[in-house]
Amino acid sequence: MTTTTATWLAELTDALGADSVLTDPDVTAGYARDQAMLAPAGTPAAVVFPRCTDDVVAVMRVAARHGLPVVPRGAGSGLAGASNAVDGGITVVMTRMDAVLEISPADRLAVVQPGVVNKQLRDAVAGAGLFYPPDPSSYDWCTIGGNLSTNSGGLCCVKYGVTTDYVLGLEVVLADGRVLRTGRRTVKGVTGYDLARLFVGSEGTLGIITEATLALRPAPKKPVTLAATFATTAQTGQVVERVVTSGLVPSLLEVMDNTCIRAVDDLLKADLDRDARALLVAQSDAGGEAAAQEIAALEELCREAGAEFVHSTDDPAEGDLLLAARRMALPALEQLGSTLIDDVAVPRSRIAQFLDGCDTVAAARALTIGVVGHAGDGNMHPTICFDPVDADQRERAFAAFDDILELGLALGGTITGEHGVGVIKVDWLEREIGPVALDVHRSIKSALDPAGLLNPGTVFRAAHRDATLGR
Amino acid sequence: MTTTTATWLAELTDALGADSVLTDPDVTAGYARDQAMLAPAGTPAAVVFPRCTDDVVAVMRVAARHGLPVVPRGAGSGLAGASNAVDGGITVVMTRMDAVLEISPADRLAVVQPGVVNKQLRDAVAGAGLFYPPDPSSYDWCTIGGNLSTNSGGLCCVKYGVTTDYVLGLEVVLADGRVLRTGRRTVKGVTGYDLARLFVGSEGTLGIITEATLALRPAPKKPVTLAATFATTAQTGQVVERVVTSGLVPSLLEVMDNTCIRAVDDLLKADLDRDARALLVAQSDAGGEAAAQEIAALEELCREAGAEFVHSTDDPAEGDLLLAARRMALPALEQLGSTLIDDVAVPRSRIAQFLDGCDTVAAARALTIGVVGHAGDGNMHPTICFDPVDADQRERAFAAFDDILELGLALGGTITGEHGVGVIKVDWLEREIGPVALDVHRSIKSALDPAGLLNPGTVFRAAHRDATLGR
Repeated sequence: MTTTTATWLAELTDALGADSVLTDPDVTAGYARDQAMLAPAGTPAAVVFPRCTDDVVAVMRVAARHGLPVVPRGAGSGLAGASNAVDGGITVVMTRMDAVLEISPADRLAVVQPGVVNKQLRDAVAGAGLFYPPDPSSYDWCTIGGNLSTNSGGLCCVKYGVTTDYVLGLEVVLADGRVLRTGRRTVKGVTGYDLARLFVGSEGTLGIITEATLALRPAPKKPVTLAATFATTAQTGQVVERVVTSGLVPSLLEVMDNTCIRAVDDLLKADLDRDARALLVAQSDAGGEAAAQEIAALEELCREAGAEFVHSTDDPAEGDLLLAARRMALPALEQLGSTLIDDVAVPRSRIAQFLDGCDTVAAARALTIGVVGHAGDGNMHPTICFDPVDADQRERAFAAFDDILELGLALGGTITGEHGVGVIKVDWLEREIGPVALDVHRSIKSALDPAGLLNPGTVFRAAHRDATLGR
Repeated sequence: MTTTTATWLAELTDALGADSVLTDPDVTAGYARDQAMLAPAGTPAAVVFPRCTDDVVAVMRVAARHGLPVVPRGAGSGLAGASNAVDGGITVVMTRMDAVLEISPADRLAVVQPGVVNKQLRDAVAGAGLFYPPDPSSYDWCTIGGNLSTNSGGLCCVKYGVTTDYVLGLEVVLADGRVLRTGRRTVKGVTGYDLARLFVGSEGTLGIITEATLALRPAPKKPVTLAATFATTAQTGQVVERVVTSGLVPSLLEVMDNTCIRAVDDLLKADLDRDARALLVAQSDAGGEAAAQEIAALEELCREAGAEFVHSTDDPAEGDLLLAARRMALPALEQLGSTLIDDVAVPRSRIAQFLDGCDTVAAARALTIGVVGHAGDGNMHPTICFDPVDADQRERAFAAFDDILELGLALGGTITGEHGVGVIKVDWLEREIGPVALDVHRSIKSALDPAGLLNPGTVFRAAHRDATLGR
């Protein structure tokens, strides 16, 4: 350990206490990466666990003084490597700041610390008859801070939107250690720039979120659930398009392709139709007659499109069974090998073309690709299954990953619907947003973090110092 | 005219054509201010009317070359002076860029130029069974560009949110004339920073919006309408709070106080209860049985709170009559003198206290103040009526305006819910957001507009050159 390192580690320990500053490589390795298993990750010099905003301020001051890279993270459920460690840097784990500070039914909001687990917040507000909609698949272990930093989505988005739609206000520790409070507790407010939404989705590159004021919704009503299978992608796409043009707003509209259907059937022995090209699962939480009507209308659209099988139920337990196939898609695909999970959003009118395109990629690269996704909002997760030990397969898997991004852009879509750019799609960011937008990103980054301390190399590269980064 | 002025005017005329560059002071004076009649405004050296993005690029390049202030504006319906002219600057009127470029029912979005009038867009999408919710009171003449720049709200917000909730993508001409395209056509997308929402609500200080991709909603269903009067503000506030805690989401929930009730009754001879302390008007557009149930639940809440009068109807024409009282509140108050319209949003649990506080201000300043507002989202418009020729009254009116902002902040609210900061609340911005947030604003402004050309003096002051601005 150099003298300099000893100095700043001592400063960190003085500020946070020895039990909040870890340096044992065997321990810190556990905080070096998220769930994007094949993304590059560095080795942190220290992993720290702040207990309060002042602790985060202290960390950023030490980092600023010594020019150290800082990577904030929550539970590490990310899928883009956005919280992967930087060599020699400080990884700031926010999980000890896990208090739900306030739930206000009268103002329909909650104030939380970033380490609160999504499910913990959902359960806490459910007790007051309220609902926090964003529901990433990892909701039972991912943290709100991570959700904010990546602007997480989930199954709810078709009706309820994404994380940024629920952010009223934030407290953020800036790169120089100053504490910014921005936003409000009111439903509306236009005082100055919308800074809160600039930090949301910035993947830890602009500041460390230490508190959030979040809007809530009334609790959803008992769901009515529908499942339908189709012989062609055209039929499947037609239903999604007709849902949009008919003005239906189901609370959930999910799709899985034949590869997923077979994988799930293998795993669950669920007697699924193994020859169906696609399975749609939908729910309405509009309640009572309205939900029944919404699902009946959807059932009619499925039959008009030529569905092979349609079934609906207002029994929540049976609905859960219908949804189980969808929820098990990824675990089922994981039985087929290592997985590279992509995350492309396309306009809702292009879903059939996207499914067909993924088939073409799978055939061309001689790989298994299962597509599961949020059909209602066009956010698809083609999942490439491969053997990572086989160098050729591995190379083809990465090539297929890129093919799918290319396909998404060609269909007017985006390279990431909800997982984020992280470190795995940095090269693709500029292709999507172009040089002017990239330059604006760099200008804003420089304005808020001139020394480039916060999560360097994530989302986009600094203009002239890429080579010096430790990952 | 100086040689320099002649030079840049010639450059503008060369680029845009003589019919798009006006300099006659009698004509340009008509573009010097918005509807905030008492806000300061300068005299523009030129008023230009771009027809396309390239024209806007040309204007910004001339401005950048000569260091000229540039003020973008739409129809001039603003209420904060945000588009008021700067002495010697160029006012850019976007009303000729008024094309609805695309309506996509299958992707439930529209692409528009900024000069499209809000009502023009609403009507255009209604033809496709779709709905663009943001509905500022000036919807029949304000432009989408202005709505974007101020993040407009309206009566719809309690259920449908504000303008930023409908922005998918933007094209923006930056201060140096580069064209930024940001955002997407997909429902979801997290590629890079949320730049689109940074420009929304930035009141023309960061760039000139030249195109917008906007999300649409399914057309609302036939409304059911309710009106109720109350003897006390406590009863009124109780209903609003119970609406929130009961999980009701009416599509409209408006309030007007006794001063407004009397003013409207004087104007319309509508046989209103002139002794009622407050009138609530609500609608549900949930459709059929759901709407009837929602309004029945609301009716019950009104009775429980002790309403003096409650009436509901599913006849749209009768509903319009009930709403007419609300819609006429401002014209009715204008019969009582000049008006200063404030725009404070408070947490929904604080509405009774806010109404009482406005009464206290009116008594203390010996002025008539009528409060009308969007009770469902807490955004209140206390309107001060006074004689501007009476210097003492005028002074008291401005003092009352400030008293109301103070009251809003004290109740945990914001100094502007939907009208913007403009030039009239610049002094109040820092009081609400504090020095760190102000500094972040200045950093972002410097990053995107280092020469400070765009709408200088609006929203906040530059750090060191306040004195040099021409307004």
